[in-house]
Amino acid sequence: MNCLSKLKEKLKKDKVEGFLITNEVNIRYVTNFTGSESILLITTDSDYLFTDFRYREQAQQDIPEIRIVEKKVSLIKTICGKLKRLNVTKLYVESLFLTVDQYGEIKNNVPGIDLIATKGIVEKYRKRKTQEEIKKIRTAIDIAERAYYGVRKKIAMCVSEKDVADLLEFEIRRKGGEKSSFETICAAGHRASQPHARTTTGVIQGKESILIDWGARFQFYNSDLTRVSCIDRISTEFKRVYQIVLDAQSFAIDSVKPGRMARDVDSAARNYIEKKGYGKCFGHGVGHGIGLEVHEGPMINKRSKEILEEGMVFTIEPGIYIQGWGGIRIEDMVLVTSGGCAVLSRVPKKLTELV
Amino acid sequence: MNCLSKLKEKLKKDKVEGFLITNEVNIRYVTNFTGSESILLITTDSDYLFTDFRYREQAQQDIPEIRIVEKKVSLIKTICGKLKRLNVTKLYVESLFLTVDQYGEIKNNVPGIDLIATKGIVEKYRKRKTQEEIKKIRTAIDIAERAYYGVRKKIAMCVSEKDVADLLEFEIRRKGGEKSSFETICAAGHRASQPHARTTTGVIQGKESILIDWGARFQFYNSDLTRVSCIDRISTEFKRVYQIVLDAQSFAIDSVKPGRMARDVDSAARNYIEKKGYGKCFGHGVGHGIGLEVHEGPMINKRSKEILEEGMVFTIEPGIYIQGWGGIRIEDMVLVTSGGCAVLSRVPKKLTELV
Repeated sequence: MNCLSKLKEKLKKDKVEGFLITNEVNIRYVTNFTGSESILLITTDSDYLFTDFRYREQAQQDIPEIRIVEKKVSLIKTICGKLKRLNVTKLYVESLFLTVDQYGEIKNNVPGIDLIATKGIVEKYRKRKTQEEIKKIRTAIDIAERAYYGVRKKIAMCVSEKDVADLLEFEIRRKGGEKSSFETICAAGHRASQPHARTTTGVIQGKESILIDWGARFQFYNSDLTRVSCIDRISTEFKRVYQIVLDAQSFAIDSVKPGRMARDVDSAARNYIEKKGYGKCFGHGVGHGIGLEVHEGPMINKRSKEILEEGMVFTIEPGIYIQGWGGIRIEDMVLVTSGGCAVLSRVPKKLTELV
Repeated sequence: MNCLSKLKEKLKKDKVEGFLITNEVNIRYVTNFTGSESILLITTDSDYLFTDFRYREQAQQDIPEIRIVEKKVSLIKTICGKLKRLNVTKLYVESLFLTVDQYGEIKNNVPGIDLIATKGIVEKYRKRKTQEEIKKIRTAIDIAERAYYGVRKKIAMCVSEKDVADLLEFEIRRKGGEKSSFETICAAGHRASQPHARTTTGVIQGKESILIDWGARFQFYNSDLTRVSCIDRISTEFKRVYQIVLDAQSFAIDSVKPGRMARDVDSAARNYIEKKGYGKCFGHGVGHGIGLEVHEGPMINKRSKEILEEGMVFTIEPGIYIQGWGGIRIEDMVLVTSGGCAVLSRVPKKLTELV
């Protein structure tokens, strides 16, 4: 049963007449509609996509089974009209995405309607990937890896972080990717102490390390990987910290299996980094689910209440960041299997010198 | 006076203690913070940026005058704690961006707080560009144009729409752009009838036209242009429709001046297209403001209540779209000046054959 059918079953069971999906990615997951700036209304009976002139033809092609309603004045006003005509009295809404303004518009224009705040209904389905999704994710990883191999040889010739990022973008597209999954992080030397450093046009200094966090999008599915390379001579200190991160990652990977708490995977890496004295230098969670979005469920951090299930795909990316010194993060993507996990990414992790 | 000071003045005047800014672009405009996933609280006294570990160092560098608060469990819970400690009883919120969930969290955790829904407070300032902003926008246009000239000569050698889009991305970055302002629309032949066609890997057929809608981002500012070229022989019919769009655009451009209603600029193009019998083939507004976002105020369409002011920058992009035949759109960017407008983009509009 596809997600749309499951949602309609849920509405019947819960005795709620409709579900208004405002999150663009959730709409794509449920319907395969490839446009944006549209809203989906699922009811126990028919389903409607509210869109504008720009996406009319595209919607007709993408989702022939769903009624396309072109907005008049505004999407939300058109939706209010439809809700009234359909006599919807109870409506599920996505409280993480519906805005206060949209909420007010519906409340004011559809008398007596009961808007029921929900969280994560579609996102719950998205966490476990189908075979078809896993295939697309594998391709997204493969493209990212081949692009990286193409770029790695040329890093020493690049003048700036931006040159490296631009080259990666070019290679990702040349290898069949739609584009980068996100703005590539390319941080040389001490700049890598910012986990989400903005790539600059500053010159890459000699004898520095370089952290690259990149991914490729293929048919809307994403990949997300991080590797650190040394441009010139590797210091003993750098090797030591790198090995701590690498070991922490491997403990986390080894801990993955269905039924385990996501937070235990986080602890597997975090406890080791803490034991080595770098606990305060690892301030983010160990990983995040990935699919249609680069960051989606399940979150793998110390507060996560998620239980791992077969078919989940997420990153494992511990790091150590020291302001003024630099940062090291190693990131791979794993798929939860019946017996543990499969590491989907294959870029070697041995620390090597590029020059 | 900068925007932050103006907002603080407004709070004092309105007797409201704080303003919670949740829109990422508005935060960037007000503070110059370059990260994401953060929330800004302005009060009549101090200002606070709520962020996470990943952006701590970046925030310290970007905005030393604003207090950085690292989230504990969640951004919104950390904010609630701060609002309570500051005894905020009246708070402006951005109703177009605050989610129903965030609203509920604040209401439930900060007893007695009055959340006052506002719309477009920061966006209002963003509509009129400063000299510094205009300079960045001019550079973003210049990069887009130089990239286009580089690509145009090679279109006939490109196999697919995607090849053209990828080449443009490469040229935009090579010419100093951060990246494309949006996913390039590159639609060959009849596919151009979709105003926001997704670029495909399908082969560009001979003797077809090609519509390219592209832009470059420079220091967070955007450009947005559209040109149509013929790959081979231009038909008389194509020339005729092209001329209608070109004339419509020129009527719209000529109508721009401070004090005029935005909807009159829309009518200037629309009335002409209607008179020529293509009214139903032009379903979108004639333009949109552009700056930190590709689409921002002022909206230039038939329902717009905006009055044009000096310093506004927007696109003028009438089009004619015929399902099964194709589409023509011509898009330039203008700056409202004291006496009328300056057309900022300079790519020639004469219809030429590429082969």
